[in-house]
Amino acid sequence: MKKYNVAVVGATGAVGEEIIRVLERRNFPVKELRLLASTRSIGKKLLFNNQPIAVQELKDEAFDGIDYAIFSAGAKRTREFASAAIRAGAIVIDNSSAFRLDPEVPLVIPEINPGDLKNHKGIIANPNCTAAILGTVLWPLHCEAKITRIIVSTYQSASGAGAQAMEELKQQVGQFVRNEAVTKSVFPHQIAFNVFSHNTKIEDNGYNEEENKVVKEIRKMFHEPHLPITATCVRVPVLRAHSESVVIETEKKLTPERARQILSHAPGVLVVDDRDKNHFPMPLAATGELDVLVGRIREDLSNPHGLALFISGDQLLKGAAWNAVQIVECLIHK
Amino acid sequence: MKKYNVAVVGATGAVGEEIIRVLERRNFPVKELRLLASTRSIGKKLLFNNQPIAVQELKDEAFDGIDYAIFSAGAKRTREFASAAIRAGAIVIDNSSAFRLDPEVPLVIPEINPGDLKNHKGIIANPNCTAAILGTVLWPLHCEAKITRIIVSTYQSASGAGAQAMEELKQQVGQFVRNEAVTKSVFPHQIAFNVFSHNTKIEDNGYNEEENKVVKEIRKMFHEPHLPITATCVRVPVLRAHSESVVIETEKKLTPERARQILSHAPGVLVVDDRDKNHFPMPLAATGELDVLVGRIREDLSNPHGLALFISGDQLLKGAAWNAVQIVECLIHK
Repeated sequence: MKKYNVAVVGATGAVGEEIIRVLERRNFPVKELRLLASTRSIGKKLLFNNQPIAVQELKDEAFDGIDYAIFSAGAKRTREFASAAIRAGAIVIDNSSAFRLDPEVPLVIPEINPGDLKNHKGIIANPNCTAAILGTVLWPLHCEAKITRIIVSTYQSASGAGAQAMEELKQQVGQFVRNEAVTKSVFPHQIAFNVFSHNTKIEDNGYNEEENKVVKEIRKMFHEPHLPITATCVRVPVLRAHSESVVIETEKKLTPERARQILSHAPGVLVVDDRDKNHFPMPLAATGELDVLVGRIREDLSNPHGLALFISGDQLLKGAAWNAVQIVECLIHK
Repeated sequence: MKKYNVAVVGATGAVGEEIIRVLERRNFPVKELRLLASTRSIGKKLLFNNQPIAVQELKDEAFDGIDYAIFSAGAKRTREFASAAIRAGAIVIDNSSAFRLDPEVPLVIPEINPGDLKNHKGIIANPNCTAAILGTVLWPLHCEAKITRIIVSTYQSASGAGAQAMEELKQQVGQFVRNEAVTKSVFPHQIAFNVFSHNTKIEDNGYNEEENKVVKEIRKMFHEPHLPITATCVRVPVLRAHSESVVIETEKKLTPERARQILSHAPGVLVVDDRDKNHFPMPLAATGELDVLVGRIREDLSNPHGLALFISGDQLLKGAAWNAVQIVECLIHK
């Protein structure tokens, strides 16, 4: 079996670590795993299949011989180093927002639009976590009944803002338990025992960056540039995995029974919808899962062509690391 | 100034305590405050305006001389004791779901339908907390532009399930901080660092009891028996105050500017909508407030006659104790 040289850029970050775990979990045919990060992490060792691998410096010369470079180090570093990786002959899979909306760059979820991979010019974008989780569940319903409107409200975990944000949540509950004053430095508001509008800038249309990403990225991946979508993105005091309350409208009437049947057979989706036991998707249950959980599948009481759903998915996996590795697997198997 | 004899039924519960605090805060003209509860709380003393008052047994004879009896002891106790209170000459304001949908019983939010009070037959129902918070904000928009559809997803605090549920959340974060196994007894799922579909029974239409209450109670209070509404009710690890992500459609186009203007002058509503500072309603900020906070007021990107909002309100106050006391104030001032 052919093996590949894989670089992970931003290897010491929350998503970087998950990429290493997913490569192990998938038994990915790795020849060399090269871990790249900024200078302050050089020499740090991370385990891959129980072997310690030293982190190397991220620089233009770091990509020699690399087949696939998975970037997860922010938009700035992608803009700085992606071209060096491509020049070295690597295909770049980028987790940042740098090129997601670039018409020259495919934005791909393998369950949705694997065909877009064939047009890549050396770089493929991985979608925003919230859009990835949402799109994976909605795509099979769109194929069946043509979605004409999406309304989504999210319940996003702290780790979506990085490992430090997750630590801040842990620190704040510790302070609460010890009766100390709660302090904050990562999020603009207390996250423990609180809920707040997503911590990204509000753009001119009144929506924050996260909400606008969901709208634009779903439209791009679905090849539906005018699909009506509205999103409300909210942080909740959860460590990991995002949840989403979704209402869709469809051109063709979609009964809950038919939707459940379609989703039961959809790749990347796991139906968790036990009404008798009140057992539905939860972030704790989605944590560590490659599949996205969906339940509460029911008719929208306010619209005969509407359907309501509740989704939980691990934003570090399907929302980031797993989708990126999955893209590489697709490229290899083509 | 005329003073009144007020009974609080379920005085030792989470809402009962809040009713006592609201009576103090409003400087309500109390002659006698009679605190009633089940036998296990008899003799327990609660402070009212710094005076200790002993809890008495809830029984048919307990209502002699009472003008207003505010019940917050569950539907079963209301069914058992409300008629005794009415026979004794009291007007009952009931926080439970026992009579909310009874066509003979007014279900009232003073900002919405105070006129319905005049038809009461001795008992007035206080709405469900989620419906109360939602209705208070939406009513002035309905008056202006006629709402034709409501889609709401909630972020409900632990204390909505009672004081014990709030203690369970505190206990679970304590266990987490001390690296102990997390245990549960009140909620069916772990609430710390988790999110789950509301812990009420799923009814035949696929919606849980809480969701169906929101639909039916809003319709009743708005006098719109067929208003299309769909709700998704979700618990989040917040101690107190519920939040709601809302999308409405209106017959007459309602711009965000006009909606903000209307809500700025609406009774019981406080607009918190600072896009530059990313400052919007949060449960921590709503806790202890009589008013309901609303922000993220923006056009629904998926519908030209749609408007999106985010709401936080103290479910123990406007969602329970405060609305009940406010009903009594209305009755007195008529």
